[in-house]
Amino acid sequence: MVAEGKGVNKEGAKERISDSTSEFNSEDFFQKTYKESNVAEFFRRNLHMLGYAGPLKNLTTIVHEFVTNGLDACEEGNILPEIAVELESLGERDMVVSIQDNGTGIPESYIPKLLGKMLSGTKFHRYIQSRGQQGIGSVGAIMFAHITTGQPIKIITSTGNGTIVTAVMDIDVKKNEPIIYQMLKSKGKWRGTKIIAHYKDVLYQKSEQGVLEYLRRTAMANPHAKISLKEPDGNVIVFERSAKKIPPKPVEMQPHPLGISADDLRGLAINTEARKISTFLSTGLSRVSSGKAAEVEKLCSGLDFSADPKGMTHQQAERIVKAFKEVKFVSPSTEGLVPIGEERVEESLKNILKPNFYSVVTRAPSVFRGGIPFQVEVGLAYEGEAGRAVTIKEDGRTKSGKASEIMRFTNRVPLLFDAGGCAITTAVKSVEWKRYHITDFENSPITVIVNFISPHVPYTSAGKQALSEDEDIMAELRFALMDAGRKLKSHLAGVRREQMKQRRRDLFNKYIPEIARAVSKLSGTAEGTLKDKLQKLVSLRLKSKEFEEEEEAALEEDGQKGPEGDREKEEEEDE
Amino acid sequence: MVAEGKGVNKEGAKERISDSTSEFNSEDFFQKTYKESNVAEFFRRNLHMLGYAGPLKNLTTIVHEFVTNGLDACEEGNILPEIAVELESLGERDMVVSIQDNGTGIPESYIPKLLGKMLSGTKFHRYIQSRGQQGIGSVGAIMFAHITTGQPIKIITSTGNGTIVTAVMDIDVKKNEPIIYQMLKSKGKWRGTKIIAHYKDVLYQKSEQGVLEYLRRTAMANPHAKISLKEPDGNVIVFERSAKKIPPKPVEMQPHPLGISADDLRGLAINTEARKISTFLSTGLSRVSSGKAAEVEKLCSGLDFSADPKGMTHQQAERIVKAFKEVKFVSPSTEGLVPIGEERVEESLKNILKPNFYSVVTRAPSVFRGGIPFQVEVGLAYEGEAGRAVTIKEDGRTKSGKASEIMRFTNRVPLLFDAGGCAITTAVKSVEWKRYHITDFENSPITVIVNFISPHVPYTSAGKQALSEDEDIMAELRFALMDAGRKLKSHLAGVRREQMKQRRRDLFNKYIPEIARAVSKLSGTAEGTLKDKLQKLVSLRLKSKEFEEEEEAALEEDGQKGPEGDREKEEEEDE
Repeated sequence: MVAEGKGVNKEGAKERISDSTSEFNSEDFFQKTYKESNVAEFFRRNLHMLGYAGPLKNLTTIVHEFVTNGLDACEEGNILPEIAVELESLGERDMVVSIQDNGTGIPESYIPKLLGKMLSGTKFHRYIQSRGQQGIGSVGAIMFAHITTGQPIKIITSTGNGTIVTAVMDIDVKKNEPIIYQMLKSKGKWRGTKIIAHYKDVLYQKSEQGVLEYLRRTAMANPHAKISLKEPDGNVIVFERSAKKIPPKPVEMQPHPLGISADDLRGLAINTEARKISTFLSTGLSRVSSGKAAEVEKLCSGLDFSADPKGMTHQQAERIVKAFKEVKFVSPSTEGLVPIGEERVEESLKNILKPNFYSVVTRAPSVFRGGIPFQVEVGLAYEGEAGRAVTIKEDGRTKSGKASEIMRFTNRVPLLFDAGGCAITTAVKSVEWKRYHITDFENSPITVIVNFISPHVPYTSAGKQALSEDEDIMAELRFALMDAGRKLKSHLAGVRREQMKQRRRDLFNKYIPEIARAVSKLSGTAEGTLKDKLQKLVSLRLKSKEFEEEEEAALEEDGQKGPEGDREKEEEEDE
Repeated sequence: MVAEGKGVNKEGAKERISDSTSEFNSEDFFQKTYKESNVAEFFRRNLHMLGYAGPLKNLTTIVHEFVTNGLDACEEGNILPEIAVELESLGERDMVVSIQDNGTGIPESYIPKLLGKMLSGTKFHRYIQSRGQQGIGSVGAIMFAHITTGQPIKIITSTGNGTIVTAVMDIDVKKNEPIIYQMLKSKGKWRGTKIIAHYKDVLYQKSEQGVLEYLRRTAMANPHAKISLKEPDGNVIVFERSAKKIPPKPVEMQPHPLGISADDLRGLAINTEARKISTFLSTGLSRVSSGKAAEVEKLCSGLDFSADPKGMTHQQAERIVKAFKEVKFVSPSTEGLVPIGEERVEESLKNILKPNFYSVVTRAPSVFRGGIPFQVEVGLAYEGEAGRAVTIKEDGRTKSGKASEIMRFTNRVPLLFDAGGCAITTAVKSVEWKRYHITDFENSPITVIVNFISPHVPYTSAGKQALSEDEDIMAELRFALMDAGRKLKSHLAGVRREQMKQRRRDLFNKYIPEIARAVSKLSGTAEGTLKDKLQKLVSLRLKSKEFEEEEEAALEEDGQKGPEGDREKEEEEDE
């Protein structure tokens, strides 16, 4: 109960009642205006929150929703994914989109709600690294077909049991419930899901935020997937898999005691099958043995650990959570996390960006908010096809050039929108790239790839396009970027050194003939002999230790420390 | 129905089935993992989407939710608002928050759902400029009490009918339904609502994103409101009203035919009481007379306008919406929009920022997405208490200075978070401030105030902290800022001119005595006489037209055009 004695300020009451509102009838007003709504209506009115904001973004969002579902369904069944996206133009901004996967398929009885009711699904409550998490996206994509064309969608799916189900269905937005128009079964040996839907207000464009780039990046982060796209003009683009092995399947985890609040603990207690608080703790949480549970019990003197966990009060949960913080637990299990892996990121980089230099870092798993495991991977690609092609204006003329490019991924899903509000962008921009021989980051031919994986990705909105700026996450992102930066630096330093030596060599060589001629005239020695001797001298000089040191100093100065340099150093040492 | 012939790719099927998934049992998997959820659970898991992300932001969000509700309740009843916020500290990050308004109060029977069920409310479906719109925020704030302390909240409310209702209640997150613990009635003449709730994980700090700044900005945008804050240390801060008149009440509008999609039209058709499509159009939409409805009918030949609107198909709705675009309608009514008004923004600026120079612009209403009315107001305050106090490091020493500050408002509600992803910030940063004599915008003592009003504010997320970057909105924001910039420029130009003259005058005056002395020695004329004559000469010179022109040229050069200058000029001309 809240503190007492916080009653109404009676003194002010008289004054306040004396305005012009005696005619206002509250009952009447509420009767006329009160209404209940549902989550589908909410997102129907706030479509941009789901990623629908303009025809280009609309199409990318639709493809994104079904492709991530397809990849998740393959992962669930340990299947090498094969995703086929087909776009058929029916007119201006008018398109039939079909997306087929070879995943586990959807059992007949789950089709209606899974695709026709928001906040229903198989991932929402599971603590596992998956692409989809919220049970909103794919229903949103079906709703968007309904909104733009009023057409139902068609789903063909089979779990591989010999029966293929074809459903024609829609979502009743006013009720957030599915409407089934047709549900047919046929015999056939096939497994997977194909969704066919008709959209308006969609646009296919080969731009940075378009479908092709989305799929290209999806292929980069999922080198074991084969992804094809049939463009509206009939042209087919295939991203072949560069890795043939199925990556290990992410494992469903239990929450770690240091990652949960009192309210979380009560939420878990309500669903447990354990009959005692002690067994609930040791079976429902990660890293809590019965020994550790006993330690916690000791710290909560007076609290009966043989009581039914379902009856746990908030105060009791608070005491337990407080006790958690005093017990030493093993760090959260991270076996459930499956990074792309340095080797595969490398393959992807080489395969798709063909860079002259690159570096890849997969950091060790870490935790945020006390107990939610996550892991960061970074790839840096330099020159080759890395960087973003741009047009540069210089003295009134335009020429093509390269600018830096940031590719953001969460659980291997590319994020193409809302870059400005994303922790990954902030982290990349906060790094003092000069320290790693990238003197002008913005205008360098560099691609920075960041993949963030976690069973709970803290997105800033339901559109899942930006990572929230959590302190622990930010720190880890920066460490990963700096690690990769250091690796790249040694490559670049080698190149720079070579370039610098060559420049000096060229300079000396340019003057050797002149000097030889002059000295020859003075001394009478043959010009050719002098030239040879001078050239040998220069070569020796260029190899000498002294010279190397001069070069080092020049390079150091080049990658000079900015005002942030020291802070970064400190952070690295903190590590 | 979707296009036919998009069947399953049978050819690939055989190949694809041949992987290692024969053991995967889909039925089993779905049975184990499928679950339905609700909107409260969704936001419970994504609290940061509602604005809960760290103790400082948490407290500001809580205060924001109840204060905006209070202000809306006052507006609804034409009441001069008086809002009292009290923060009582119970320990570290542990606080009782109580917020009282003198609004219309809540009738007893509506209390439970209005405060204990998400997506219920009186504003969600109304097309009116109001602070709250989504029916999520205040229930979210009550849920946050539940999550952090497990405590129910207390509501004292009365519609002024002689009965005061005191309710103790909570939200059942698993069901998105209210739980009522107590509902007491007592007699008393009072009107308003007071909410008392106990929170943990909240922090009071006098920072840019804290409660005090939030209330200060609320007072600026609502000069007719009296707002008081009792800080946790017992200190009381009062923002007195600078305007005593109640602003006109925003009017509920009907949607304009150019602002709706086919799906919107069907949505309206389902709820209409009209029995014919023709009457539905002329009664359900703004600016559609029966004459205009007849014009639309002519353009939809073959479509029966005497048919029941409830039976309208998507294709029919599409034809009507297409026809709308060929008929000339009067622009959307904007009488429903209520800006703060130039005079009141001026009063607020002077009252709170005490600037040396300012300019205020309230633009004429405009529309986005074809038919949603909106309006932009901009205030620029320069020097005085304008700008953000910052510490500047220079040559190793620190000194205090000023940086520019952007205050964002939507429907008079201050937005303190997510500045980076907000259209207002983008618009402010896109303006070439040099053109308006602000040479270094980032480091100028300037406060930019922007208020965006509309019956439908396109927020980027449910946390309502950032405006979506719609093209029409961006253009209008820029125009408003440039208008205000031009006004400020003429002030600043005057000052600059004076400063420059004074500098020249000082320069001449410095040398006059010396020159007088020298000439006196040479010519024998009295030094005093010469000095007087020279001074007069200088004064005349400084007033001459030639000199003025020189000055103008110098000023022009100062406010030089950047590369964006020309583009901006073009845009202005486009207008």
